[in-house]
Amino acid sequence: MSKNIVWHNATVRRKQRNSNNGHKSVVLWFTGLSGSGKSTLAHAVEEELHQLNCQTTVLDGDNVRHGLCRDLGFGEEDRTENIRRIGEVCRLLIDTGVITLAAFISPSSHDRDQVRKIITKKDFIEVYVNCPLEVCEKRDVKGVYKRVRLGEIKEFTGVSAPYDIPDKPDIVIDTEAETIEESLNSIMRVIYARNIIQKKKI
Amino acid sequence: MSKNIVWHNATVRRKQRNSNNGHKSVVLWFTGLSGSGKSTLAHAVEEELHQLNCQTTVLDGDNVRHGLCRDLGFGEEDRTENIRRIGEVCRLLIDTGVITLAAFISPSSHDRDQVRKIITKKDFIEVYVNCPLEVCEKRDVKGVYKRVRLGEIKEFTGVSAPYDIPDKPDIVIDTEAETIEESLNSIMRVIYARNIIQKKKI
Repeated sequence: MSKNIVWHNATVRRKQRNSNNGHKSVVLWFTGLSGSGKSTLAHAVEEELHQLNCQTTVLDGDNVRHGLCRDLGFGEEDRTENIRRIGEVCRLLIDTGVITLAAFISPSSHDRDQVRKIITKKDFIEVYVNCPLEVCEKRDVKGVYKRVRLGEIKEFTGVSAPYDIPDKPDIVIDTEAETIEESLNSIMRVIYARNIIQKKKI
Repeated sequence: MSKNIVWHNATVRRKQRNSNNGHKSVVLWFTGLSGSGKSTLAHAVEEELHQLNCQTTVLDGDNVRHGLCRDLGFGEEDRTENIRRIGEVCRLLIDTGVITLAAFISPSSHDRDQVRKIITKKDFIEVYVNCPLEVCEKRDVKGVYKRVRLGEIKEFTGVSAPYDIPDKPDIVIDTEAETIEESLNSIMRVIYARNIIQKKKI
């Protein structure tokens, strides 16, 4: 019998995980128009970090909108709730020791500020993926701009709904002018400069 | 200029992460009455796995109810949505390569089945943390049973709201009769038996 069980909460803490993994856990938040290259860039950074033996994950519309946020639409209130939930998942992932690459249009600076608050400023790296609308529209990887122009989609960010350009992003990427390697290098420079990866990992 | 950029999606997949980490990613889902010892046990398993260099995380009321699900109450519909969201977060964590220890009363077998479906059966290990109500009430770590008996909390699982005992749990833990070490060992035996940790890690 177990009358004298010590019900101890032996909690593995973030600090231990970070030390074990050899890198800090932060969120890189990629914001920008549809077609600006957010997801592509997030996956490129993940690939690079994976090669360096880091724990990583990508959150984007593909794995969030069909799962955690499948009950939400694209109205203002639902978009805010969508970003809030993603922010909370980012917090859990940071606590788990994971470098989280979140790629979402996230047009509202208010919503992005909310995430910054949930995660805390020091763990939130805002990456503004800047690309002119015309270029995004020309790429139109998902065929959404065509549908917008045909009137099938209303209130689309950059066309008929506002995009709040980040005030003080930590990194600005120009995917019109830069190659993906150049963009990737810009991001990796910040990751090294902030000592997110400890030297023994490099 | 970058007309010839190859916008490739270099996706790091779960399989690679698992191989890199030296262990599979699964969910251990601890279900049982309030005070049965779910969270304590989840943290004990996490500590053990952490010692073995595994990537782990604990999800429980403490880090979910104040964050991701702070907008939800304790009515039937909200509890179902609470468990659904947790299931979706578990899926993301599995994809990230993390062994996830989820400790929730989760009284409804329908809700637990929903999680099993989201995650897929093979990655969902149901741990029934069995403990008589009288013992849970005597422990009353959080002082909730006292409040229930005073009528301050209505519809409380095991007292005034139903708890669906798991039909075919993968593991049954008896926290009245077993020491925490014995319970921990039962769970670790299943983890080894299912080859969740690859031999090189042991």
